[in-house]
Amino acid sequence: MELTFLGTAAGVPSPTRNVSSIGLNLIAENGSVWLVDAGEGAQLQLMKTAITPRRITRIFITHLHGDHLFGLPGLLSTRSFHQASPLNVYGPVGIASYVETSLRLSGTHLTYPCTVHEIPDDQTLFHADGFTVRAVKLDHVVPCFGYRFEEDARPGELQVDRLRALGLGPGKDYGRLKDGQTVVLPDGRLVVGSDFLGESRPGRIVAITGDTSPTLRTVELAREADVLVHESTYAATEADMAPRYTHSTCVDAAHIGAQAGVGRLLLTHVSQRYGDADLDQMQEQAREVFPQSYVMRDLQTVDLPLRR
Amino acid sequence: MELTFLGTAAGVPSPTRNVSSIGLNLIAENGSVWLVDAGEGAQLQLMKTAITPRRITRIFITHLHGDHLFGLPGLLSTRSFHQASPLNVYGPVGIASYVETSLRLSGTHLTYPCTVHEIPDDQTLFHADGFTVRAVKLDHVVPCFGYRFEEDARPGELQVDRLRALGLGPGKDYGRLKDGQTVVLPDGRLVVGSDFLGESRPGRIVAITGDTSPTLRTVELAREADVLVHESTYAATEADMAPRYTHSTCVDAAHIGAQAGVGRLLLTHVSQRYGDADLDQMQEQAREVFPQSYVMRDLQTVDLPLRR
Repeated sequence: MELTFLGTAAGVPSPTRNVSSIGLNLIAENGSVWLVDAGEGAQLQLMKTAITPRRITRIFITHLHGDHLFGLPGLLSTRSFHQASPLNVYGPVGIASYVETSLRLSGTHLTYPCTVHEIPDDQTLFHADGFTVRAVKLDHVVPCFGYRFEEDARPGELQVDRLRALGLGPGKDYGRLKDGQTVVLPDGRLVVGSDFLGESRPGRIVAITGDTSPTLRTVELAREADVLVHESTYAATEADMAPRYTHSTCVDAAHIGAQAGVGRLLLTHVSQRYGDADLDQMQEQAREVFPQSYVMRDLQTVDLPLRR
Repeated sequence: MELTFLGTAAGVPSPTRNVSSIGLNLIAENGSVWLVDAGEGAQLQLMKTAITPRRITRIFITHLHGDHLFGLPGLLSTRSFHQASPLNVYGPVGIASYVETSLRLSGTHLTYPCTVHEIPDDQTLFHADGFTVRAVKLDHVVPCFGYRFEEDARPGELQVDRLRALGLGPGKDYGRLKDGQTVVLPDGRLVVGSDFLGESRPGRIVAITGDTSPTLRTVELAREADVLVHESTYAATEADMAPRYTHSTCVDAAHIGAQAGVGRLLLTHVSQRYGDADLDQMQEQAREVFPQSYVMRDLQTVDLPLRR
């Protein structure tokens, strides 16, 4: 499980930062990659990573501003050249019309089934592929969702020593017991799987905001998450501008991360007014409030280790 | 007058070639840059050149396939951050709906006037800024135009020696004579400007195709052009595929260039099946038919010198 930042700029690209797109690499977990946002050039950035478009099975658009959206039609189109699997696209109301119009007018015929899901309001999108995914509406000038990716709990380890003590060695029964089934021993005793499993390990939680003012809804979205990816359009020095444009500063994001009790805070969507040299300062400002804050760069990949 | 190739790939981008977009740099001629096609990432490629989005005053879309179109909304949007001048966009029927839908659904408010012109069929688009621009419908699976940019003739030089022989030295009268006006000498003689101008010099002609099968309409489009930019999706070895997808091979393009009597043939829109090493071979194949053939690379700039 990894996050790859394909674009970390806000609004317009800079020579070193592309507009918003994040890859959630779940190849090890379920064989796929999910994408959050697809700003223009997302498919160009993907070519600089190990992620191939055909591996992307779900795309979550936070909101319909162009810097989060305009790379979607090109990516859908390019997937058609890659014998790609079915795709699900999620986003605010309007996303279906945007996709339909772009594909129809450009004469693009997709070679795979593509289902577009419009999200009217907060909802659990699905429970599948080992994850429960929830959309929560945040606070931006247009409808904008944050997404919470909650991995299923991992079942505990089979307590092999205790089974051996009963005279039950490795074999097919171990698989049944792991699945929680009951096995009958030759002497008639019943062995119930759940009695021989260690404690289950909680799954990981990733929360990713779109553009938003600081809001308690993000705290709800990110509660106890391993990682919160939060927009950070402005540095602390431009705190007056953030509310005007319904964005956040790095310090706003840090307060949200602290309130939500997250493990790490990854900051992205940084205004092009800041040069690469300013990013360290932005990170320091956030760390004064929440020490586990990191400002992301384009093509940076962050590993999300298993929970203990 | 220069052509800058922002993207030379066909259909999908490759790590070294972006999808279609060409800048026609007219800064020296009329202070602006015109763009032909705006595939996804056009604005990203522009950042690697000296061309700023605000200098672009006209955009000509050849056809609505995504690899020529999907960079348009992002470029329009980014121009709003640059105190840009009014913009005119030209393209086949459907372009207005595409622009309108993309801007509306993404909540993009342009800060400059943007006029979208739909072209139903062959027509002269305008005579302005020192150029006459004509659209000619070519032969592709969807309506696709080629554009002919014809520079106004440059008036001949004022024949100063002959004027001096009449006793007329440099001064305001020279400007009037250059404009073709008539000046009265102190002794009553009339001097007619046009009698004292050397031969006018023809303007330059640039013809740029969209995607097309080889067609006599391109010969018409490119007649006597200084430069013809022609699509070259396939090499001679894939001659069977070109008609199937209404594209051209490099050799098709070379025949068109020869028939039209152009000065140089610039080949672009090359399928990603060809590696960079194959491009030299493609160029050689074209040169066997038309020696002044050149296969373009991304970010290559070609100067178009004044005609003698």
